[in-house]
Amino acid sequence: MRVLAVGAHPDDLEIICGGTLARFAREGHDVVMCNVTTGNRGSFVHTAEEIARIRLGEARRAAEVIGAEHVTLGLSDTEVNAADPEQKRLVIDLVRETRPDVVITHYPQDYMGDHDETSKLVFQCSFHATLPLVETGRPYHPVVAPIYYMDTVFGVGFAPTEYVDVSDVIDVKTKALEAHESQLTWLRDHDGIDVVEQMITSARYRGMQCGAAYAEGFVPCQTWLRGTTRRLLP
Amino acid sequence: MRVLAVGAHPDDLEIICGGTLARFAREGHDVVMCNVTTGNRGSFVHTAEEIARIRLGEARRAAEVIGAEHVTLGLSDTEVNAADPEQKRLVIDLVRETRPDVVITHYPQDYMGDHDETSKLVFQCSFHATLPLVETGRPYHPVVAPIYYMDTVFGVGFAPTEYVDVSDVIDVKTKALEAHESQLTWLRDHDGIDVVEQMITSARYRGMQCGAAYAEGFVPCQTWLRGTTRRLLP
Amino acid sequence: MRVLAVGAHPDDLEIICGGTLARFAREGHDVVMCNVTTGNRGSFVHTAEEIARIRLGEARRAAEVIGAEHVTLGLSDTEVNAADPEQKRLVIDLVRETRPDVVITHYPQDYMGDHDETSKLVFQCSFHATLPLVETGRPYHPVVAPIYYMDTVFGVGFAPTEYVDVSDVIDVKTKALEAHESQLTWLRDHDGIDVVEQMITSARYRGMQCGAAYAEGFVPCQTWLRGTTRRLLP
Amino acid sequence: MRVLAVGAHPDDLEIICGGTLARFAREGHDVVMCNVTTGNRGSFVHTAEEIARIRLGEARRAAEVIGAEHVTLGLSDTEVNAADPEQKRLVIDLVRETRPDVVITHYPQDYMGDHDETSKLVFQCSFHATLPLVETGRPYHPVVAPIYYMDTVFGVGFAPTEYVDVSDVIDVKTKALEAHESQLTWLRDHDGIDVVEQMITSARYRGMQCGAAYAEGFVPCQTWLRGTTRRLLP
Amino acid sequence: MRVLAVGAHPDDLEIICGGTLARFAREGHDVVMCNVTTGNRGSFVHTAEEIARIRLGEARRAAEVIGAEHVTLGLSDTEVNAADPEQKRLVIDLVRETRPDVVITHYPQDYMGDHDETSKLVFQCSFHATLPLVETGRPYHPVVAPIYYMDTVFGVGFAPTEYVDVSDVIDVKTKALEAHESQLTWLRDHDGIDVVEQMITSARYRGMQCGAAYAEGFVPCQTWLRGTTRRLLP
Amino acid sequence: MRVLAVGAHPDDLEIICGGTLARFAREGHDVVMCNVTTGNRGSFVHTAEEIARIRLGEARRAAEVIGAEHVTLGLSDTEVNAADPEQKRLVIDLVRETRPDVVITHYPQDYMGDHDETSKLVFQCSFHATLPLVETGRPYHPVVAPIYYMDTVFGVGFAPTEYVDVSDVIDVKTKALEAHESQLTWLRDHDGIDVVEQMITSARYRGMQCGAAYAEGFVPCQTWLRGTTRRLLP
Repeated sequence: MRVLAVGAHPDDLEIICGGTLARFAREGHDVVMCNVTTGNRGSFVHTAEEIARIRLGEARRAAEVIGAEHVTLGLSDTEVNAADPEQKRLVIDLVRETRPDVVITHYPQDYMGDHDETSKLVFQCSFHATLPLVETGRPYHPVVAPIYYMDTVFGVGFAPTEYVDVSDVIDVKTKALEAHESQLTWLRDHDGIDVVEQMITSARYRGMQCGAAYAEGFVPCQTWLRGTTRRLLP
Repeated sequence: MRVLAVGAHPDDLEIICGGTLARFAREGHDVVMCNVTTGNRGSFVHTAEEIARIRLGEARRAAEVIGAEHVTLGLSDTEVNAADPEQKRLVIDLVRETRPDVVITHYPQDYMGDHDETSKLVFQCSFHATLPLVETGRPYHPVVAPIYYMDTVFGVGFAPTEYVDVSDVIDVKTKALEAHESQLTWLRDHDGIDVVEQMITSARYRGMQCGAAYAEGFVPCQTWLRGTTRRLLP
Repeated sequence: MRVLAVGAHPDDLEIICGGTLARFAREGHDVVMCNVTTGNRGSFVHTAEEIARIRLGEARRAAEVIGAEHVTLGLSDTEVNAADPEQKRLVIDLVRETRPDVVITHYPQDYMGDHDETSKLVFQCSFHATLPLVETGRPYHPVVAPIYYMDTVFGVGFAPTEYVDVSDVIDVKTKALEAHESQLTWLRDHDGIDVVEQMITSARYRGMQCGAAYAEGFVPCQTWLRGTTRRLLP
Repeated sequence: MRVLAVGAHPDDLEIICGGTLARFAREGHDVVMCNVTTGNRGSFVHTAEEIARIRLGEARRAAEVIGAEHVTLGLSDTEVNAADPEQKRLVIDLVRETRPDVVITHYPQDYMGDHDETSKLVFQCSFHATLPLVETGRPYHPVVAPIYYMDTVFGVGFAPTEYVDVSDVIDVKTKALEAHESQLTWLRDHDGIDVVEQMITSARYRGMQCGAAYAEGFVPCQTWLRGTTRRLLP
Repeated sequence: MRVLAVGAHPDDLEIICGGTLARFAREGHDVVMCNVTTGNRGSFVHTAEEIARIRLGEARRAAEVIGAEHVTLGLSDTEVNAADPEQKRLVIDLVRETRPDVVITHYPQDYMGDHDETSKLVFQCSFHATLPLVETGRPYHPVVAPIYYMDTVFGVGFAPTEYVDVSDVIDVKTKALEAHESQLTWLRDHDGIDVVEQMITSARYRGMQCGAAYAEGFVPCQTWLRGTTRRLLP
Repeated sequence: MRVLAVGAHPDDLEIICGGTLARFAREGHDVVMCNVTTGNRGSFVHTAEEIARIRLGEARRAAEVIGAEHVTLGLSDTEVNAADPEQKRLVIDLVRETRPDVVITHYPQDYMGDHDETSKLVFQCSFHATLPLVETGRPYHPVVAPIYYMDTVFGVGFAPTEYVDVSDVIDVKTKALEAHESQLTWLRDHDGIDVVEQMITSARYRGMQCGAAYAEGFVPCQTWLRGTTRRLLP
C-alpha cells in the first residue's frame, strides 16, 4: 500500500497521526508525509526564511524516524486556501505523484485556518486527480483514494469512530516529534506548553477509550466512490 | 470467535444483519442468533400460540441456512422491557451461556419499542454478565463484549460508520429471510410490502455507499472497556 | 381526518400545539385532545382530588374553545411510565378508539419526566394498536399513524423541521390556554411566570423563523411504515 | 410557480431530483434546470471541448424529457468557487432572470468540491439577487427564495426531512438520466458503475423510508426570511 | 450554596467530578456526595454484604478528603431503575433533604446502565421534589435546581461545554479516589486497569482542552425553569 | 478587559449581541464594535455611497448609546471573503490594534454569506494576529483570544450553551438598534418587518429559556489554545 499523509505545517502529522504512520512503515507500506506549508511563520526569533530552512531539516529527520518519505508544497503559513487554483494544482500533482491507496489529512474543523483549508484541498483534489482532462502535465491517478480525517489538536470537537493502537510505536512517535526542536522550544518558552507531554496525554487518552496503552483516533470520510469496507489499520 | 446476535423478533436479524452472520459462520466462527420474543403477535390469522410455534420453526430453518445456532428467550411481542429484573436475568444468562467475543443487536432508536428495549437490555446486561456478584446460577463471563448496533429497519435515522461486504452471501441472506414464510405472507397480504425486495434494496443501497454489490451497515457502541481497535469484519 | 393529540398534563397541548389543533378543527377535521394525567399535583393550595376535578373542567373548556373532544387517561402526575403494562394498554385503547390518521405528542426530550414518558408511550402504542393479537377487548387500528413531535416547553433543545402558521387562530389558542385558570394563577403567584405571555412569545418566535405572524414548530417521527410524504398542515 | 434547480454538472439534477422536477413540470409549473459547469472534464476519450459539446446536447434532451428549460453557466469542471466575484455575478443573474419561487440545489456536504461550492454559491446569491444595489445590469428579484437541498450522491451523510413521491414519474426520471449517454458509458466502462441502476436503487430506498414506491429526499434550508410553512411538493 | 452530587456507585463522583466538588468545599459551599447504590457487586473476592460494608467506609473517607457529607440510597448495583416508584421516592427525598442550589450527576449516555438510570432519576426527581402534592413526608424543595451532567467514564461520546479548572485540587481528587482501595485493587488485578492513572490522564486531557493543568468537563442540562445564566464554577 | 465585537454589517451587532456589549461597557470594560462592511447595499432608495455615509452615522450613534468605540473595515456588502489575503490583513490588524481579551462574532452558519465569511475571517485572523512573522506593520497580539459566537438572526439552527442576562440593558439595546433608522425604515416598508419587535421577541425568548426577562445566547468556540474556564459574562 501507498499511504499519503498531508498536514498543514511541519509537526502536525507527527503530533496527531505519527504513530499510525510509523505502524504503516513498520508493516512494510510506503508512507509519504507532506507539509503543505514550510512552517515559515512558526518562530519568534528567526526570519521567515531561516525558520523555513530549519523546519525543513526537522521535518526530514522526523520522517526518517518514522520511516517515511518527506515532501513539502512550499506554501506560506496562514495562506493555505482551498479556493486557490494554483494550490489545487499542487495538491492534484501531489496525489498523482504519490498515487496513494489511502490518504490521511486534517479534520475539516480544527483550531486553525490552515488545517481546515488543507483538509478541504485534499478532499477536493484527491477526486480531481482522477480526471484525465484536469491537465497538469502528470498522468491521472485512477483511484478516488479513501480519506481518513485525523484527530484535532487536541481532541476538541472530535469523536473518533476508528482507533489505531500505537502502543508499540509510541517511542517512535515521541522521537519523531522531538525532531521538531524549534517548535518545542518556542511553544515551551512562549506559551508554557510542553507539546510532547500533550501529545502523550492525547495518545494515552485515546488509548484509554479503546482499550490500548496508546492510540490515535480517526473518522473516515465516507462519500460516494470513497466509502470502504476496509479499516485504516486492523 | 463466538458471535452473539440478539434481535427482538424472529426475522429481525435475518433482515438487518443476516449477511454478516452468514459471513461469520462461513469463516468458521460460532454464531448464536437469539430472538428475545417468540413473535407471538405477528399474525392476522393465527392464535398467539400457533404463530409462536410456526415462527419457532421458521427461525430454526433460517438459522440453519445461515449456519448459526438458534435461541429464544420466550418473551411476548410488545412486552420487551429493559427495566424488568426477570428480563435482565434472562439476557445476563444468555451472555453467560454464549460467552461472546462480539455482540450484535438493534440500534437503540428503531421503528418499534421492542427493538429499542432489546438494544438497551443487551447494552446493560452484557456488562452485568461480567460481575460475579450478580448471581444467576451461571458463572460470570469475564469479558465486556464489544457491541455493534445494526442498521434500522430500513435505514431511517441511521448513518453507518462500518460496512460489511455481504455480496458473496446475499443469496444465503435471502434464503434465510424466505424461511420466515408467515411474515412474508402477512406483510404482503396485509400491508402490500415485499420484505425480501425491501431487504435487497437496503443491502444494495448500503453496498452502493461503500463500493460493494451488497453490504450491511453498523455503528459500534464505544464506551469505556468496550472500545476496540478491531473491526467487526474486515 | 382524525387527529389525536396526546399531552402529559392538562394545558400542555394548549401551550404547545393549541393553534395547530384549532386549525385542524376549523378546517373540518375531528380532533381529540387527551391528557395522560389528571394534573393532580399541579397546585399549592388544593388537594390532589380537588385540583384534578378543577383541571378536568378547565381542560374541557379549553377543548371546547379549540373545537376538540377531550379525553383523559386518569393517571397521576409524576407517575407516567412507558414501561408499565397497564399504561400501555390505556394508550393502545386510546388509539384504537380514536383511530387517528395523524398523532401529535411531546418531543421525547422535554423538561419533565412525564412529557418524555408520554412521548415514548405514544410512540410504542400507536404501533402496538395495529396488532390484532394484542388483545384489549377493542378492535385493532389498521394504520401505523404518523407521529409529529411538538415543540418543547419553551423551545430548548428543539429545532423544528416543519412549521404550522397559526396566525389566524392565535386568539383561539390564547383563549384555550386562559381556560387553565388554576395553572396560570399558580405559576404567576408561585414562580412569577406569565404562561400566556410565554406562549405568545414562543409562537411569535417560531413565526419569525418561518415568515408568519405566529407559528408552531414540529419534528416528524420518521421510521419504517411511519414516514410520510404528507405535511402536518400545509 | 417558477422552480429553479441548480446542479454542478450536467446529469447531477437528473440523478438526484429529476423526479421532483418532472412532477413540477407535469403539474404545470415552470422549471429551469441549470448546470453550473459544462461537464468539460467528464470523459476519458474526448477533449474538453468535445465532451462539453456532447453533454450540452445530452442535458438539453434530458431537460426536454422532464419538461424543463435548460441553462448552463459555462464554468469548467473542478473550478466552481463560491468566493469568486465573477461566478457570484453569474448566479445572481441566473436568479434575477429566472425569478424563482423555489430553488433546489446540492446539499453543502457532498462527495465532490464542485457540488459543495455550487450549493454555497446558490445560498449566497439567492439572497444577493434581492438587493438593488448589487448592480449587474438586470433588475433585482424581490424575493429571498426558499432553498431545498437535495440528497447527496448516493445518500451518505444525508437524512431527509421531506420526501417527494416520484412513483408516477420514475420512468420520466429514468429516461432523462439515460439521455446522458456519455456519462453512463464512461462510468460503466471505467468504474464498472451502472448509474441508472444506482439511481433506481436510491429512489426505491427513499421510497421505502416514506411509504412510496419511489421517492426523493430533501432538507429545507431554513434561515431568517427563508423559512417557510409550505412544503416542497405535497 | 448547597451542592448535591449524585453518582451511581461509590467512586464514580471521585473519578469524574471529585475536583469540582473539592473546589466547592474549599470555597465554603456545602457539598453532599450521594451514591445511589452501595457498590455491592463490585468485587471478585468478597460477598455482596462485605463489599458493601467495605465500600461504605471507603466512600466516607473519600468524602472526608473532599470536605463533603456522604449519603447513600442503599440500592443494589445493576438495579437502578428510573421507572421504579420507590427509587423515585428516595431521590425526591434526597433532594428535599439536601435542598440543593445546584445538582451534579451522570451524563445520560455512559458506559453502564446504572449511570444512565441514575441520571434519569435525578433529572425527573429534582423536578418532582418541588411539587407539594408529591407527598413523601418531607417538605417540598421550592427550586427546580439546575443540573450539570458530568463527563463520561472516560470521555467517550462527551463534548464538554463548560470546564472547571481543578489544578489546585488535583492532589485532593487523587487522594479521594485512592480511598477506594477495594476498587483500585480489583480493577488492577482483574482488568489490568490503573484507575488513578486513567483519572489523571482524563483530568489532564480536559485541562489541555481549556488551557489549565487539570480540568473537569460538564454539560448543563438546559430546559424550561432550569436554564441559568450562572456558570457551574467561574 | 478589552472586548472586540465583529459584525458583518452595521446593525448586526446591535440586533444580536447589543445587550451583552452594553453590559460590558456598563461594567467598565472597553468595547470595540466593528462592521466589516459599510452596509453600502442596504437600501432601495439611496446610492451605495449615500447609504454607506448614512449608515456610518447610524453605527456611530448606536455605538455611543452602547458606550462602545466604533470601527469599520470599509468592505462592500456581499463581498466579504475569508479567502481574500487583503481582507485577512485588515482583520489581523483590527485584532492587533484592539488587542482583545475576548472576541464576539457571527455564528459560522447564519442566513447570509457575509455573516458566515465574517465569522471565518475572525476565527482565522484572531490566531494569525499572534504570529510575529505575519508582518503587517503592526506589532503582534500575544494572546489567541477566546471567541464567542453570537446567536443567528433570528435563532434558526442555533442552540445556545451560554446565556447572558440583558434585562437591565434591554432599553439600551433597543435605543441602539433604533439608531439604525435607514434599515428599520427599509425593512418595514419593503418587507413588512419590524426589526425592533423581532429583536425584542428574540431577547425575550432567550430570556424565557434561561430564566431571565431578556437574554442573549452564545456558543463558545472551543479549540486548542482557545478553550477557557471563564464565562463570557457571569
